[in-house]
Amino acid sequence: MSQFDNVSVVKKANVYFGGQCVSHTVLLPDGSKKSIGVILPSQLTFSTAAPEVMEVIAGHCRVRLKGEATSKDYRGGESFSVPGNSSFEIETLDALHYVCHFG
Amino acid sequence: MSQFDNVSVVKKANVYFGGQCVSHTVLLPDGSKKSIGVILPSQLTFSTAAPEVMEVIAGHCRVRLKGEATSKDYRGGESFSVPGNSSFEIETLDALHYVCHFG
Repeated sequence: MSQFDNVSVVKKANVYFGGQCVSHTVLLPDGSKKSIGVILPSQLTFSTAAPEVMEVIAGHCRVRLKGEATSKDYRGGESFSVPGNSSFEIETLDALHYVCHFG
Repeated sequence: MSQFDNVSVVKKANVYFGGQCVSHTVLLPDGSKKSIGVILPSQLTFSTAAPEVMEVIAGHCRVRLKGEATSKDYRGGESFSVPGNSSFEIETLDALHYVCHFG
């Protein structure tokens, strides 16, 4: 599914790391919240409050979860899970398009 | 209105100018299409196919329409119109959040 239907979307974006990550918040009819965004080529560390699932829509990234020794590659169609109150390092070589599922 | 309700939103973003502009496409129930996005601090020239109205949600920009001698400033809550098959130069000093209305 290339789009969300019957949702609300917040007009103002979330801009992180000086614009290396730009996302918009999407609210689903069931009350759940997601964000859709782009990470530009960079190496960043994101912290989590709630657990989240990062679904890669397009692009390619290398991810190392906090506490893990090795990193793992993810491409379009793949996802990775991050625990709450944790963090992950992500390296992107081209624009990474993602959907972040919370909770 | 800070959000669009009852819309579809395309998961994959549009990335322009190496990421200086990132937008997502929003489809309204009446069939019209808009894009919501961010322009990072930069000086860019955008070309238009269809006429468009750029609504500034937050931030500050200076715009010069093709064929005009002077530029004009726009801030959150303000809009400017661009004819079809034309272009405009836009300078942003902080992240500019916008909604682009087509047609």
